[in-house]
Amino acid sequence: MTIEKHFDPDLTSLTISEPTLLLNKDICQANISKMVAKAQKNNLIFRPHFKTHQSHEIGRWFREVGVEKITVSSLRMAEYFVEDGWTDITVAFPVNILEIERIKRLSSSIHLNLLVESKTSAEFLKDNITSPLSIFIKVDVGYHRTGLAPDHTGQIDDILHTIKKSDHLDFKGFLAHAGHSYAARGIEEIRTVHEESLVHLRELRERYNAEYENLIISSGDTPTCSTMDDFEGIDEIRPGNFVFYDLTQHTIGSCSLSDIAVALAAPVVAKHADRMELIVYAGGVHLSKDRLERDSGQISFGKPVELEGTHWKLAFDDANYVSKLSQEHGTVKVTRKVFEKYNIGDLIGILPVHSCLTANLMKQYRTATGVISRL
Amino acid sequence: MTIEKHFDPDLTSLTISEPTLLLNKDICQANISKMVAKAQKNNLIFRPHFKTHQSHEIGRWFREVGVEKITVSSLRMAEYFVEDGWTDITVAFPVNILEIERIKRLSSSIHLNLLVESKTSAEFLKDNITSPLSIFIKVDVGYHRTGLAPDHTGQIDDILHTIKKSDHLDFKGFLAHAGHSYAARGIEEIRTVHEESLVHLRELRERYNAEYENLIISSGDTPTCSTMDDFEGIDEIRPGNFVFYDLTQHTIGSCSLSDIAVALAAPVVAKHADRMELIVYAGGVHLSKDRLERDSGQISFGKPVELEGTHWKLAFDDANYVSKLSQEHGTVKVTRKVFEKYNIGDLIGILPVHSCLTANLMKQYRTATGVISRL
Repeated sequence: MTIEKHFDPDLTSLTISEPTLLLNKDICQANISKMVAKAQKNNLIFRPHFKTHQSHEIGRWFREVGVEKITVSSLRMAEYFVEDGWTDITVAFPVNILEIERIKRLSSSIHLNLLVESKTSAEFLKDNITSPLSIFIKVDVGYHRTGLAPDHTGQIDDILHTIKKSDHLDFKGFLAHAGHSYAARGIEEIRTVHEESLVHLRELRERYNAEYENLIISSGDTPTCSTMDDFEGIDEIRPGNFVFYDLTQHTIGSCSLSDIAVALAAPVVAKHADRMELIVYAGGVHLSKDRLERDSGQISFGKPVELEGTHWKLAFDDANYVSKLSQEHGTVKVTRKVFEKYNIGDLIGILPVHSCLTANLMKQYRTATGVISRL
Repeated sequence: MTIEKHFDPDLTSLTISEPTLLLNKDICQANISKMVAKAQKNNLIFRPHFKTHQSHEIGRWFREVGVEKITVSSLRMAEYFVEDGWTDITVAFPVNILEIERIKRLSSSIHLNLLVESKTSAEFLKDNITSPLSIFIKVDVGYHRTGLAPDHTGQIDDILHTIKKSDHLDFKGFLAHAGHSYAARGIEEIRTVHEESLVHLRELRERYNAEYENLIISSGDTPTCSTMDDFEGIDEIRPGNFVFYDLTQHTIGSCSLSDIAVALAAPVVAKHADRMELIVYAGGVHLSKDRLERDSGQISFGKPVELEGTHWKLAFDDANYVSKLSQEHGTVKVTRKVFEKYNIGDLIGILPVHSCLTANLMKQYRTATGVISRL
């Protein structure tokens, strides 16, 4: 018995023997192009969220198609992308005032946009900042995680008043994340979320447009940006996950399974015929413990696919799914046909439930031609 | 407004401004000592699982109290601990035959113990291995994740027969992980799991003891090792999580909350009075998405505690819990008293649901005296 079959000629010495995150560059670049085209068609600033891929090289694929402004979720991530020449960055997270030294460093060298949703944070920035800094006020369009309710104009005005008193702070506009679109199932539910969000954002524009003529209304999550066509009232979109998509996005209705650009290659280490289960080397430290409830009520941690080198085929039906994950073990419930197809020492692919968290854990990507590193 | 209060004099320049995993060395070393004492009292080989901490320095705390044999969950982790002088390592994961080159390298330099649960894997090792390699046969004592059913003696005998034909393979014994103890709630349920496991393991000993007189029966998960007193029939225990414990272990009944040795320090970045929620900089990329169902049916991703420098106090009752996690955001549901206590820019501690996964994500530990790195 040998394992020669896994020595893919395309990979030369890059044999896969451990859990490895495969990235299909063609699918990924098609996802990028499609979103760029949609932004252009709708005359929107496209400021993609880079927290999903966290990679210089993948960032360059965006730059090659004209993207100049980006979104990240931490100052550390902003620093990482500054290293690769990005100079207009929004940190889409309520400003963490404890990181003021980082903020001062970054704002002195690039165009930095931060999110504020309290007078406390605005006052702190006013008192401590020493370079120009753009501020978005975070508004809550229904997700109820962060942001001010759009009708709490008293609180908004308080923040605006504080910003006005500062020589360095510049009010850029309102920023929303309709994260409740993740609870949607199907286009019509996504549309409901999107349209409610638009109503709030248009009201804000009407109220503040006179005083702030260059007001930017920034919105955009992957479900609405992937499926909607009416962005009237929005100036900028910031989707992130679409670069890879995943099973969650497929369940929501944002993409088809064939749009998913990453799959985890997992060695089969054991087989249990009595339970029709393959045990794979792919656990919570690779895929993350993010989960999806299936129509049947069962919990899924991933969907198996057939690997061919660094590519994969959607070869298995929904009866096949990752039913359990522990630290390094994955349990894949399979049909008899799939069970018999796989032997110990084979590799099987797994489409992730949440590609952002899988990518965050895996630290690098394997494409058909090499390895891509990340933060 | 300043943030000087976070410049803890004990930490000099090690100010905490980002999510930081705090480790209380006293609690951790007490957890280690207690388990060492239990192993000694019961005349057991103590082979702690190092997948929880994955750290050279914490490994040395075990070495200082006499531990010489360890367990890890991957060959990569084995290599990491070999670098720090560990020479007797069990990889408690069904052997991944794709990593044969690593296995050959490791087995030529240290005493390596691998887990086999199929004739396929045993045959592969027999045909490919070039140095002495010890084999445990993995048995399933009720968790139904991996391992052979103890009464499938035909399959066990097939593996033993293969091992016998090899000059390099050495059968060491049977290894079990009663992972279904994690579903237990309270000592009596843990005891049921433990006693059923002991019955299986004693039967295996009886059957194979005559032929293999140095047979090792290895077992041990944190719940049973923390709470049980009868280990008759077991030679070796391999708990891992006990080094830190966590909310899951507390819910099972393995430990008290004051035995938990790690807490995530999280900056408060927003407050929402209408929902009595603190938004903290601590998300799925810090804590992991592992979850606990509370008695009330709600899902918890962590428990807030009051920080004092790098230490914490169990100051808040169960009405306070982490109710949601996204990539970097955590939502902490709190009582009015706790809500009013915390301001934007404060740090709050969070006890993790699953310390192994939190430690795996956080990459380093902050103690009262410095920083401890890990794999």
